[in-house]
Formats: sequence, C-alpha cells, structure tokens
Amino acid sequence: AASSSSTIAILIHLLFCFNALLLQCSLSRGITLESVRDFLTREEDTIVFSLIERAKYPYNSPLYNPSSCLKVDKWFGNSCSLVELFVRDSERVQAKIGSYQNPEEVPFFPEDLTWPVVPPYNFSKVLYPAAASVNVSDTIWSVYFKELLPQFTVEGVDGNFASTAASDLACLQALSRRIHYGRFVAEVKFRDSPQDYIPAIRAKDRDALMKLVTSESQEEIVKKRVEEKAAVFGQDVTLDRPADTGDSNSSRAAYKVDPSVVYRLYGDWVIPLTKIVEIEYLLRRLD
Amino acid sequence: AASSSSTIAILIHLLFCFNALLLQCSLSRGITLESVRDFLTREEDTIVFSLIERAKYPYNSPLYNPSSCLKVDKWFGNSCSLVELFVRDSERVQAKIGSYQNPEEVPFFPEDLTWPVVPPYNFSKVLYPAAASVNVSDTIWSVYFKELLPQFTVEGVDGNFASTAASDLACLQALSRRIHYGRFVAEVKFRDSPQDYIPAIRAKDRDALMKLVTSESQEEIVKKRVEEKAAVFGQDVTLDRPADTGDSNSSRAAYKVDPSVVYRLYGDWVIPLTKIVEIEYLLRRLD
Repeated sequence: AASSSSTIAILIHLLFCFNALLLQCSLSRGITLESVRDFLTREEDTIVFSLIERAKYPYNSPLYNPSSCLKVDKWFGNSCSLVELFVRDSERVQAKIGSYQNPEEVPFFPEDLTWPVVPPYNFSKVLYPAAASVNVSDTIWSVYFKELLPQFTVEGVDGNFASTAASDLACLQALSRRIHYGRFVAEVKFRDSPQDYIPAIRAKDRDALMKLVTSESQEEIVKKRVEEKAAVFGQDVTLDRPADTGDSNSSRAAYKVDPSVVYRLYGDWVIPLTKIVEIEYLLRRLD
Repeated sequence: AASSSSTIAILIHLLFCFNALLLQCSLSRGITLESVRDFLTREEDTIVFSLIERAKYPYNSPLYNPSSCLKVDKWFGNSCSLVELFVRDSERVQAKIGSYQNPEEVPFFPEDLTWPVVPPYNFSKVLYPAAASVNVSDTIWSVYFKELLPQFTVEGVDGNFASTAASDLACLQALSRRIHYGRFVAEVKFRDSPQDYIPAIRAKDRDALMKLVTSESQEEIVKKRVEEKAAVFGQDVTLDRPADTGDSNSSRAAYKVDPSVVYRLYGDWVIPLTKIVEIEYLLRRLD
C-alpha cells in the first residue's frame, strides 16, 4: 500500500510537471534569467536617477496634506492629497496612450483608467494568466510616502509642487515596475525548474518558497551595486578632478542622495517586496 | 554745441541707469550670478538623466505619426501626434497643481491650461515683467523631435508608448527649463552692469548683445562638463571595476547615450537657444 501510494504521488507529480510544461509552450519563451537580470540592473539606474531628481526639491509638505486641495474633485471628495490627485490624473493620461497594455506596468489606481487611443501592441505573453494580477501597489504607495521620502528629502517648501509631484510619480513608477517585475522573475525561475517549486506551491508553503526565491549573496551584490550607483550618479561632476566613484567617505556629504539610504531602500523594501510578489505569483502558478 | 549734445547724451544715459536701478529695487534681489550658475549646472544632470532614460526605449515611431491616433480628441482633430496629445494632457495635469505659477516653468501649449487647485505660492519676482514672456518653445519642440531624438535613440518599436512619451516630456521640460532660464541669466547680467547693456538695447543691436552674452571659454567648459556627465551617468556601474570616468575611448560604446552627442546638443542647440532667449529678454528690458 505504501508503495502504491508513493507511485500515485509520483504520477501526480509527473502530471503537474507535464501540465506545467504544456502551459509553458503556450507562453512566450523570449524571457530568460539573463534578460530578467538585465532588466532589473537597468531599472536600478532608473530608480537612482528618480530619487536624485526628487531630492532636488524639499519635502514640500502641502502636496501630502489632504486639506491643501482647494477644489473638490469629482472622484474623491475632500480626502485626497494633491499628490494623489496628480498621480490619478497622470495615470489616466498615460493609460490613454496605452501604458497598461504592457503587463510590466501596474497602475496605482486601476479604477480610474481610460481606454487607450493607441493601436494595440502585441506584447509577448510571459506571465501565467491566473497569477499575473498579483500586486502590492498599496504597500509601495504607503512605504514610499511614509518610510522613504522623508529619508532622502530635506524639510521645507519651495512651491515647486508640480515638479515635485512629477518626481514622486517617477519614483513610484520605477519602484513599482521593479517590484512587480517579481512576477517575471518568478515565472522564469519556475520554468527553469518546476520540479523544485511544485511541491511547495501545492503545499502553500510560503516559508519553503521564500527559501527557494532567496539568494543572500546575490541580494548583497545588488544592494552594494545600487549604493555604488547612488555614489556615481549623485556626485557633482566637475572637470578639474577625476569623477568620484564613491570609495572615499570624505566627499559623501556632496552626494545628492546618501548612498547608504539607497542601500537600505533596497535591503529593507525593494528586495523584500519583490520576493513577496514572487511568492504570491508562485502560489497562483498552478491555478 | 557738440559739448552740450554730449552732455545731454550723458544725462539720458544716467537717467536710464537710474531708472534701471529703481526697477531693480522693486524686484527680488535673491538671485546672483552664482545662484544662476548653480541652477544651470544642476539642470545639466537633469537633462543628461532624461536623455539616458529616453534612450532606454527605441525611437517608437507611432508616437510621432499623426495618423496613429485612433480617436479624435476634442481639441485638435486629426492633426495631432500621440506625443503631442500626451504633452497637452500632461501640461493640463501639471498646471492643475500649479506648475506654471513658477516663472521658471514655460508650457509648450499655454492655451490648454487649467486653473490650479493649489494654494498660491509666493515665488520671488526676479524677471522684468515686460520681458518675462520671451519664449522659444516652438523651436525647442521642433529641434527636439527633428534634430535630437533620432541622434540618441535606436530605430525600432517596442510598444512602450506611454513610457517613451513620458521620457520625451521629461527631456522637453528639462531642455525648456534650461533654455528659458536664459531670462534669469540675462536679468542677472543686466543688473550686474546695466551701463554695458543699455546702449546696445536702445540701439536694438543684436550683434552687440550677442557679444555681451557670449563667453566662449565658459561655453567650452559647459560643453566638456556635460560630455563628462553623459560618460559618468551613462556608464554601466558594476562592482568589479572602478567606475569609468569617460577618459578611455575603449568603453565608449557601452555608454547609454554617446557623450559626444550631448556635447553637440549643448554646443549646437542648448547654448545658442539660451543666448537667443537672453538677447530677446534684454531687448525688452527697458520697455
């Protein structure tokens, strides 16, 4: 009886693997672990640029205070901050030219979006449909405003509300694109070795999945690299001395965003949230 | 008679100087040649970042073709490209939170703007009112799309129309902010030595004004510095080698935007257009 039940278990396991392989064939094969890594590495530059650009402006608190909004907008009464108003409006404008046709882009306010006026573009279908909708936008939104923004901006109000909000939007979208790319990361990892993931997915074992998607050495490389990028991109480039590469602490004060803040941003938020997206995606990967 | 006419000329000259000084007292004194230079130097970083971010995407030609727009928008019939639609919409959204209350910001489509919902911010009044409206937005628009964009993007269509258009907007606004800052540059130069400018302004002598606002050695420093910034900010930062500072030509191919393109962008367009703004501003400085 023991032997026949283990035979059945093996058969079920094989059936799942076969099923996974079949689905894989129906999805695009244009994604590899290398292309995923390239995307994430390039996105680091975008995130660091966006933080440096946001740090041009002081905190500009009226943007984040719901009572600053003099007019009542038709959608959300008095309860909306200026920055929320701006992001909702901007996402509508971006949706109009097809932003969210690309599965890499995840809106913060999907309920507001308008129909695109652009010709449909045939994006390759990489994500498993039942898992594609995983998102942590609400968490990114609250983490950005509550935890991150006060760490890399100085206090004060300079009146550049629109430029500041546009910089916030750039930061939010870059972070969201990176974190939600966890769906693509998970898809590639799953395809590379479905046999490793299927038992944990079937058991809904989040701890086992967390272990599978974690590589501490790789994460440390990423954190060190973004710290280095903040030092290189955030320095004052002049012609009379070689560009500082971030090795010397003496000039650290001159960086537009403290590199150690970017290191912690990745370690405390970007990487953990990406892994949550990966795990939630994997949990739906066999649905 | 010769002596009395030269006395009158001197008196008129002094009157103009006095008049200029009076006006100067009514305007904000919070601007100096040093603060102007700091602004322009920081804006170089923004321009280089925006070009690098635009270069992430291929040219994406459907954005620039009026016939790509499937829907007729209420403002501009069939004749509008997707990118124009996007910029018009975006400027309206930005105006709503007060973008163009700041005299540093100049819209591309001022006729479309909505009334701001933000509390008015008391920006310091630096510009001479009769000259503040000088603008070269139409030139920046056509130069950007016709001359610049094809130089730093690769051919192709990847469907990321919204991200591409948002990057175009960031480039356009950074260039516009820099070039229209020529008004502030001219104001500071005029205040520093009105006696040098008044005769040329009264004679409407553009050549003389061009000579006054030109410093070839300073311009060469700026061009070399933006080239260096393109090399530093556009490199692939890795942990296993010191960051490349742009001195070695061997790795030039790896830059996200060719530094020599940025050098020429400044030399052929940004600096000359800024000087046109300065001259047009000065010509109205005594109105």
